[in-house]
Amino acid sequence: MDTAVDVLLERWRGYVDEALARHLETVGDREGVRPPQRLLDAMAHSLLAPGKRLRPLLVLAAANAVLDSEARALERALPAALALELVHTYSLIHDDLPALDDDELRRGRTTLHVAFDEATAILAGDALLTDAFAVMATAGATAVHELAQAAGSAGMVGGQLDDLAAEGTTPSIEVLARIHAKKTGRLFEAATVLGGLCAGGNGDELARLRALGRHLGLAFQIADDVLDVTAGAAADKGTGRDARHDKATWVKLLGEQAARARARAEADAAVALAHGFHGAALAALARRSVARTR
Amino acid sequence: MDTAVDVLLERWRGYVDEALARHLETVGDREGVRPPQRLLDAMAHSLLAPGKRLRPLLVLAAANAVLDSEARALERALPAALALELVHTYSLIHDDLPALDDDELRRGRTTLHVAFDEATAILAGDALLTDAFAVMATAGATAVHELAQAAGSAGMVGGQLDDLAAEGTTPSIEVLARIHAKKTGRLFEAATVLGGLCAGGNGDELARLRALGRHLGLAFQIADDVLDVTAGAAADKGTGRDARHDKATWVKLLGEQAARARARAEADAAVALAHGFHGAALAALARRSVARTR
Repeated sequence: MDTAVDVLLERWRGYVDEALARHLETVGDREGVRPPQRLLDAMAHSLLAPGKRLRPLLVLAAANAVLDSEARALERALPAALALELVHTYSLIHDDLPALDDDELRRGRTTLHVAFDEATAILAGDALLTDAFAVMATAGATAVHELAQAAGSAGMVGGQLDDLAAEGTTPSIEVLARIHAKKTGRLFEAATVLGGLCAGGNGDELARLRALGRHLGLAFQIADDVLDVTAGAAADKGTGRDARHDKATWVKLLGEQAARARARAEADAAVALAHGFHGAALAALARRSVARTR
Repeated sequence: MDTAVDVLLERWRGYVDEALARHLETVGDREGVRPPQRLLDAMAHSLLAPGKRLRPLLVLAAANAVLDSEARALERALPAALALELVHTYSLIHDDLPALDDDELRRGRTTLHVAFDEATAILAGDALLTDAFAVMATAGATAVHELAQAAGSAGMVGGQLDDLAAEGTTPSIEVLARIHAKKTGRLFEAATVLGGLCAGGNGDELARLRALGRHLGLAFQIADDVLDVTAGAAADKGTGRDARHDKATWVKLLGEQAARARARAEADAAVALAHGFHGAALAALARRSVARTR
């Protein structure tokens, strides 16, 4: 059953997909020098694979929530939305490398190092990350700083290293929450804050959007853990991606029922924060973060 | 024989080294979260290894050339200088990986994937690159855009991919110049432009600094090729790093004497452009780019 907000979000997803394709068709330097074709092909393999585009949608929904105008939200926040997806895609490419998670499938396609080679995958990830900052620069220095802090050594990359170090161990709930807050949560948080920044939100609005992104990121991560286990079981393998890597998960630490309950509680907190803003898109995305596990 | 400008540049190198160490001691997010210790140790291994710091010195020299004030150049351009060295160091770490050049020594130390492991080296490179943009954001969005364009898919990363693709082939001089302009030259160009930007240089000054950085980068690259061959010969191995990887070099394409002459011509062009500015530091660095080969 498609509600009006589902139709809206689907339209935005189309705009994001168009922006991603247009980015690869136009990316180049100030003198019109284009990237090597092989690099463009490699970036396209990962970037244009079908995705939920949850992070860019969050950017747009947060901008719309502040501005109460779809047209102005798209006009102001689409570059930031694009930059978020570039960063997310780079992180998937590097995460999947043989030296890290060594995965062969991603978004229904072979991973980039399998489809091309390891050197190309490393460089394509580097290129997507760097180009994201060229795109984000159009939204101003504060936006660049927010993205770099979320994705850098104290954020996403730090969380990835913690996550690798924790393999084969049983961390406490607090430690797992901290790892996930950095590895996944900080980019969700950056998405809502950047949408608010592009919309010219005030300090109070940005603080509420930050809290919303944090709750939503945690809800998404826990729901992802639940889905990983149930999908693994459904596929009659008994284990999903995380179990294969012997990663600590919310399901392992809390049990499936308590993990579902915690994901719902985090999503409810995000939905409650969304009600302080305009429009229904932000609340719908908060609900969607756990919808797959219901 | 130390001239006054050598003393000046050595003092600036000290400031850059201090800034690098201080960066690692203080890097963290807005809530005071620090990177994991292992990530800090890995970044320190590569970042604090002894280096010429040529790119950060160029940033400072370009700022000083516009401002004619050492104190104000340092105050305004030190963050950009730091960001350039973070980006340069990330590029060395990823370039040395087994899937790329597979090198074991760098700056007198074992390469990062040898000293730690491959996953940590990939992530430490990612972290240095990302953190560079958090630092560069303090210099404004135009500076971020300049750095991202220089280092991204149409710049340095594109050049690295071209360089790998050209291994075992004999490109024309024009193609080799284009590969090197992207792989090495664009970051030198960004260094001089960013110094000028931080100093508030006008459009004409920035254009001359860009041309200067381009000539200087090419001089440096050709001199590096010459040094690679002569150092390899001196070490009685007969081959240097580039020959080991079967990379096309200026020496292979032009012969050693013509390569030396071309490097000197590019350095002379850079020195001539430097004379339009204040101070002697920029010209000294242009001369230094080929000094090792004389």
